[in-house]
Amino acid sequence: MIQVKGYAAPQAKAPLAPFNFERREVGPFDVQIEIQYCGVCHSDIHQVRDEWGGSIFPMVPGHEIVGKVTKVGEKVTKFKPGDLAGVGCLVDSCRTCTSCVQGYEQYCEVHWVGTYNSLEMDMKTPTYGGYSNSIVTDESFVLKISDKLDLKRVAPLLCAGITTYSPLKEWKIGKGHTVAVLGLGGLGHMAVKLAVSMGAEVTVLSTSASKEKDAKELGAHKFVVTKDEEQLKSVTNYFDFIINTVSAQHDLNVYLNLLRLNGTMVLLGVPPEAPMVHAFNLIAKRRRLAGSLIGGIKETQEMLDYCAEHNIMSDVEMISINEINEAYERMIKGDVHYRFVIDMATL
Amino acid sequence: MIQVKGYAAPQAKAPLAPFNFERREVGPFDVQIEIQYCGVCHSDIHQVRDEWGGSIFPMVPGHEIVGKVTKVGEKVTKFKPGDLAGVGCLVDSCRTCTSCVQGYEQYCEVHWVGTYNSLEMDMKTPTYGGYSNSIVTDESFVLKISDKLDLKRVAPLLCAGITTYSPLKEWKIGKGHTVAVLGLGGLGHMAVKLAVSMGAEVTVLSTSASKEKDAKELGAHKFVVTKDEEQLKSVTNYFDFIINTVSAQHDLNVYLNLLRLNGTMVLLGVPPEAPMVHAFNLIAKRRRLAGSLIGGIKETQEMLDYCAEHNIMSDVEMISINEINEAYERMIKGDVHYRFVIDMATL
Repeated sequence: MIQVKGYAAPQAKAPLAPFNFERREVGPFDVQIEIQYCGVCHSDIHQVRDEWGGSIFPMVPGHEIVGKVTKVGEKVTKFKPGDLAGVGCLVDSCRTCTSCVQGYEQYCEVHWVGTYNSLEMDMKTPTYGGYSNSIVTDESFVLKISDKLDLKRVAPLLCAGITTYSPLKEWKIGKGHTVAVLGLGGLGHMAVKLAVSMGAEVTVLSTSASKEKDAKELGAHKFVVTKDEEQLKSVTNYFDFIINTVSAQHDLNVYLNLLRLNGTMVLLGVPPEAPMVHAFNLIAKRRRLAGSLIGGIKETQEMLDYCAEHNIMSDVEMISINEINEAYERMIKGDVHYRFVIDMATL
Repeated sequence: MIQVKGYAAPQAKAPLAPFNFERREVGPFDVQIEIQYCGVCHSDIHQVRDEWGGSIFPMVPGHEIVGKVTKVGEKVTKFKPGDLAGVGCLVDSCRTCTSCVQGYEQYCEVHWVGTYNSLEMDMKTPTYGGYSNSIVTDESFVLKISDKLDLKRVAPLLCAGITTYSPLKEWKIGKGHTVAVLGLGGLGHMAVKLAVSMGAEVTVLSTSASKEKDAKELGAHKFVVTKDEEQLKSVTNYFDFIINTVSAQHDLNVYLNLLRLNGTMVLLGVPPEAPMVHAFNLIAKRRRLAGSLIGGIKETQEMLDYCAEHNIMSDVEMISINEINEAYERMIKGDVHYRFVIDMATL
């Protein structure tokens, strides 16, 4: 077994603290990566606090992982030592169901293995994530990372990037579309950058007028303060799509009303309580409410290649691993532009 | 003015009773129809009882109207006296907005004029529906009816038919698709007939095992008793589409779980309280929840022509106009196969 250093939550809601653990030896199809940077996703907090239930402790969070390949198994063909590589939210799946065969491992009909707080396909070995100095992953679930981009700013693409890229591609969003982004956090700021790069007219919807400058700097064409009735009214029946990144409780109906005929709101976050949806809001304009979950491996690679080609990266604030608990507190307050990334050299 | 006999609700929740009223003279673009049959839609009851708010009284309900043209205006080109003709849920709209121009008058961005319980484009003249012996309607909102079909069984196509046909076409439902129909009433029985005719594999979902024979007779390939856990489990992640015709309160999440990856539930009914939707149910399989409202005039004509070509009609129970109040009581209990149609000769 390989000895690994990391940070873990020993139990629900407890602060993260140093934690030594073991990973499997590098098997024939495995790639070992020395983790250089790991992004901090809001779902790390949800899971550490067991807000979705069923959390497994001790938990080493982290699924926005980038680093350098240090060792590969004898059958590995995609990677060699020294290559840059990434691991996102998934490290395995059944690989045989209809979803997996189509490249939708995140919708695996049998079991998909999350990078942390999950069980391997043996349904008993827990997985540990990227708040650690090394990870061993089957090459089929390892992503190639371009050396053209600033590596620490690439890390958040592995979750925030793919989670917003996937619906933009699924709904073929681009030139001629009016797109609203609801929530300007880790996901939202990537949604703005990506949708703008694809040619859509992008509006940031925010409860706070103070975010206008930020939104425009990210490339948004418009900014609407949703607490201002007049501004809200000006975009009623306006958007083809709303990318809803908010996982706090909010009234969907206010925003559904902003969709034009045949418009779609895509939910990326899970509010604590199931939102109420006025059926008439959907019926009256043939609107659609949809959900989307991260992305498959093939699409994640496509997204990374797209970002390299278009020079798209996350805006990040670097932290040391021992600042992680404080970072969580700041994230809960929305006080981050827009993603914390842990410099794993500080471990 | 033209003197018309009908039945009206004098006020909310009151029984319907004979009512004499006036309609406008036949204008240059108008068609006058002697109403032979009028279907009884569940929305007639909702509106008579003011369950959606804003009802206008006295109210002459009825928007599934078929009969014979008795007079046409001088500029009318589509109809001549003696032609069969129909009027559905719409009798006018702004005709100039993007929706109208595209043939989506039901999604008119300015105002669409309902056949009853609505105001004309002048925003002051109330409209009166098909529980009457005659109607005067602009030819642009009058439908051609084939003489190949049994006229009384055509009437319900004007609402129940188009309301189910429109989403089947919008979502391009046909061969290779698994479609569930939730609710086997006026809309549901048309959804089964139409989806079967388009080549889909159709399953009726019902809380009551007793409806299996009816469902199969309508052409459904499968029948699932949703109160039976095993049967319900057998169709988890199974359907590409669910046509949800239920307007009583029900838990959408139970049925959303039956959709496979990328599956869509289309809401056609408006439950009294806004349903709760578990965001994760949508996100976990990229499912979609949509709504659809009747259909535009062009599509309604297309549907009528399609039904004539495929010999598709509603299953009806004929009533006299003086049985209307009793019919409402029976409909509320679900005791109708599958649509009451008023024989207007009984007026």
